[in-house]
Amino acid sequence: MAINTVYVIGHKSPDTDTVCSAIAYAEYLKKKQKIGAVAAVCGDLNPETKFVLDYFKIKKPTKLNSAAGKTLVLVDHNERSQMPDGADSAKIIEVVDHHKTCFEYPEPIIFRAEPLGATATLAAKTMIAGKFKIAKPMAGILLAAILSDTVVFRSPTCTAEDIKIAKLLAKTAGVKDIKKFGVEIKKQKASLKKMTAGQIINSDYKTFEAQGKKFGVGQIEVVDLSEARARRNEIKSEMENIRAKEGLEFVVLMATDIINCGSEIFVAGDSSYIQKAFGKIPANGNLYAKGMMSRKKDLLPPLLKTLEK
Amino acid sequence: MAINTVYVIGHKSPDTDTVCSAIAYAEYLKKKQKIGAVAAVCGDLNPETKFVLDYFKIKKPTKLNSAAGKTLVLVDHNERSQMPDGADSAKIIEVVDHHKTCFEYPEPIIFRAEPLGATATLAAKTMIAGKFKIAKPMAGILLAAILSDTVVFRSPTCTAEDIKIAKLLAKTAGVKDIKKFGVEIKKQKASLKKMTAGQIINSDYKTFEAQGKKFGVGQIEVVDLSEARARRNEIKSEMENIRAKEGLEFVVLMATDIINCGSEIFVAGDSSYIQKAFGKIPANGNLYAKGMMSRKKDLLPPLLKTLEK
Repeated sequence: MAINTVYVIGHKSPDTDTVCSAIAYAEYLKKKQKIGAVAAVCGDLNPETKFVLDYFKIKKPTKLNSAAGKTLVLVDHNERSQMPDGADSAKIIEVVDHHKTCFEYPEPIIFRAEPLGATATLAAKTMIAGKFKIAKPMAGILLAAILSDTVVFRSPTCTAEDIKIAKLLAKTAGVKDIKKFGVEIKKQKASLKKMTAGQIINSDYKTFEAQGKKFGVGQIEVVDLSEARARRNEIKSEMENIRAKEGLEFVVLMATDIINCGSEIFVAGDSSYIQKAFGKIPANGNLYAKGMMSRKKDLLPPLLKTLEK
Repeated sequence: MAINTVYVIGHKSPDTDTVCSAIAYAEYLKKKQKIGAVAAVCGDLNPETKFVLDYFKIKKPTKLNSAAGKTLVLVDHNERSQMPDGADSAKIIEVVDHHKTCFEYPEPIIFRAEPLGATATLAAKTMIAGKFKIAKPMAGILLAAILSDTVVFRSPTCTAEDIKIAKLLAKTAGVKDIKKFGVEIKKQKASLKKMTAGQIINSDYKTFEAQGKKFGVGQIEVVDLSEARARRNEIKSEMENIRAKEGLEFVVLMATDIINCGSEIFVAGDSSYIQKAFGKIPANGNLYAKGMMSRKKDLLPPLLKTLEK
């Protein structure tokens, strides 16, 4: 009997953590666990991820246009709405994640989630616990993923364990100045100049469902909020298009200033839940939330609470 | 600020795996992770579990009548319907399980599930990986839990890892003949003579929800099916009471013959899904399914498939 290829794959709108965790974890499953694993991706790579893969001379993962009928290991996500198209008819054999859990599957599988700053940290921990020698370029991309997802250790989601594992990986990867390397990575995505409004929203966009209400939340990291503010009308009109097309209650965009640590919140559609959670939106502007860095930790929990009411 | 007590607790209708995993894992969290953990239980102990705790001189876990407002580590379950009463308003910080996943929680937490024969195997693995020295009586109850949940390694859910960990634990616990010890454990629950019909059904009873349909499945292990067969009418009438009271579509009881490896299936309520999955139920009898040992592996997957149609 032919053994099925196992696709190790991250979420839609792939980011650096999702892509690099998939590549390194597929390597681990293949070499250590003797599983026929292949790293895959279900969307285009963003400039930051391209920079990281080029930097460590790692080839791009396989593009999987449909996961239908495939065997999958999911990394960096577990919610249906974030899975690759066709995942409904896929066989899922394992999940490695650092998000909240919203997962239903008819068979017992390996499901590992920990509240860490990056999935790459959990992937690296699992490899280390499995006594797997992480090769230099793999250590490099895992380090880059941690730096990216924790905003160079500045995100409130960042834990002592992320920093500890990042330091270990930096040693293997031969990266001497971790923070400098982190800022170099983050800069790749920080200018909105060459991006359309659609690319800005979709650069890291996820949909959620709670209490029967569907909504979308995008996030973009910038080093200066003025570009996003100047393009407010264009961005909001594109957000409204997405909302209408996907039949969502509302769409949120967090433009996160990674230097001054705060987020400008754009809303299209019903803004009442966001206002209940974070305050009134000015008539001709957006809501600025000081200190808000993380969709997962700063935005979602208060928002989900207002949805419950 | 006072640190909240963390209750390590298993599912309703507690069995040996749920109780012993909770006790040993609480010990690990307390001693190794310095968490104020207390082992708890949300139902009465069955004769098998009482025998195991007496055997290794371990005191009974705290009875938690309501988990409302408490902080919990869930072991051996993750579905809402199997959680202790009041869990809806509890804070869940960790899950350690070996069942299918059906879990939604608004924050990222530690969630570890692996398709092993017993939660005790995963608990022991986690302790070993955490370089925790498992004390003799703790090794004993974890071994007993593995033997109980895998029906002395005979269940199709039993994996090579369960056997490997059981052997390690037996060494620490000073148990020489593992299989003989396993049979001694299983015998404690194997006679239905002193049990009421309600006790038979509830000895290991769980409710499930799929496709909007709620149903209950109990399982009882016996060394001889004649007792269960002789009490067919009494058992089915009690099952019908439970079905009506809980507003379920149907209730199933698996009386599992652990010697001859097969299960007698009793159904109250709508039996069409069970019949579609496993064959016609004889007019004045029950359905005997040869080889069926496991609710999780043999009964649920085919049954869930018929519910999807």
